[in-house]
Amino acid sequence: MQDDKGLLIVLSGPAGVGKGTVCRALREQNTDIKYSVSATTRNPREGETHGVNYFFKSKQEFEQMIEEDRLLEWARYVDNYYGTPLDNVLDTINSGQDIILEIEVQGAGKVREKHPEGVYIFLMPPSLAELRSRITERGTETEELINKRMTVAREELEMMKHYDYVVENDEVGSAVERIRSIVTAEHCKKDRLINKYQQLVEVK
Amino acid sequence: MQDDKGLLIVLSGPAGVGKGTVCRALREQNTDIKYSVSATTRNPREGETHGVNYFFKSKQEFEQMIEEDRLLEWARYVDNYYGTPLDNVLDTINSGQDIILEIEVQGAGKVREKHPEGVYIFLMPPSLAELRSRITERGTETEELINKRMTVAREELEMMKHYDYVVENDEVGSAVERIRSIVTAEHCKKDRLINKYQQLVEVK
Repeated sequence: MQDDKGLLIVLSGPAGVGKGTVCRALREQNTDIKYSVSATTRNPREGETHGVNYFFKSKQEFEQMIEEDRLLEWARYVDNYYGTPLDNVLDTINSGQDIILEIEVQGAGKVREKHPEGVYIFLMPPSLAELRSRITERGTETEELINKRMTVAREELEMMKHYDYVVENDEVGSAVERIRSIVTAEHCKKDRLINKYQQLVEVK
Repeated sequence: MQDDKGLLIVLSGPAGVGKGTVCRALREQNTDIKYSVSATTRNPREGETHGVNYFFKSKQEFEQMIEEDRLLEWARYVDNYYGTPLDNVLDTINSGQDIILEIEVQGAGKVREKHPEGVYIFLMPPSLAELRSRITERGTETEELINKRMTVAREELEMMKHYDYVVENDEVGSAVERIRSIVTAEHCKKDRLINKYQQLVEVK
């Protein structure tokens, strides 16, 4: 009988929202969630370890991984490649363990195309949450500033709509707590559990 | 601008699974979740307070509530009526607060027909969870006992399939923790939040 697969959890959101900080805080809590390690062609910095911070690859190795479709997503920044090795992700979820990918929105979009069954969490800047009260405080903001905020809010809504969950990063501890709750809730979803038991009952 | 509604949370499951115990434990944690108080025609017992344990009604009052469709669900046991007053539930969710109903499976089915937007949690007896390992332990159970367990498992699966989440009541504290996580996760669902922000952005 096949064991349950782990969850593929993708944490994304606008640049500067604090994805890295939230992910590190989650990691420090020593949950059962594994962390996806990215591959890169950039040189290791002081204190960085291969397989922990990054898988350090040569340009040739990286391009071969692209060629062989062994990356879940990849991008090129300046002169270096960055990407998510597929093997590590698949091995983890196939072994029944959850894995989290911290990734920018374009990369998250690519992962979603291939793995719509993943759990997609959009980390939201608190400014959007505050927008509501701010724009209703009449007379305290200029028309121009309100319009600017509205444009940003609309752009973020466009990205947000592709996700399953939206977590406000008002405070790192709260954001981490919400992400942990989402993971727990996802494990309680009937659709996940009923298949397991259905299988069990039919096997006999 | 309209505020977000609270969640209608329905906790149900087979008789004897421990719905009452789990609900009481949840209540003792003083979360923000409100508890639906049932109406009944039975006499108050020692220490029971009107509006806390039950809304105590005369048979005539209760039948009038049925007549006027003011009960979310109701049932008659022995000579007494039991039911969930609609007003209290709607007032709570309309004020933005979550409310939990602890209810047997037939009642939960009636509530779901009227309120499919609710969050339906099936509390699962640990025996079903243990089934997997037990039936695979070859030779330790008689054929008859295995068949009996299979029948129970199939019946429970039939009920479970109408729910959003399945929570195993292996241990009260863990079950309560899972329910709290589900409520937190539901509040982070994109579909709930995007409407709120969409509204906000369009209003201006």
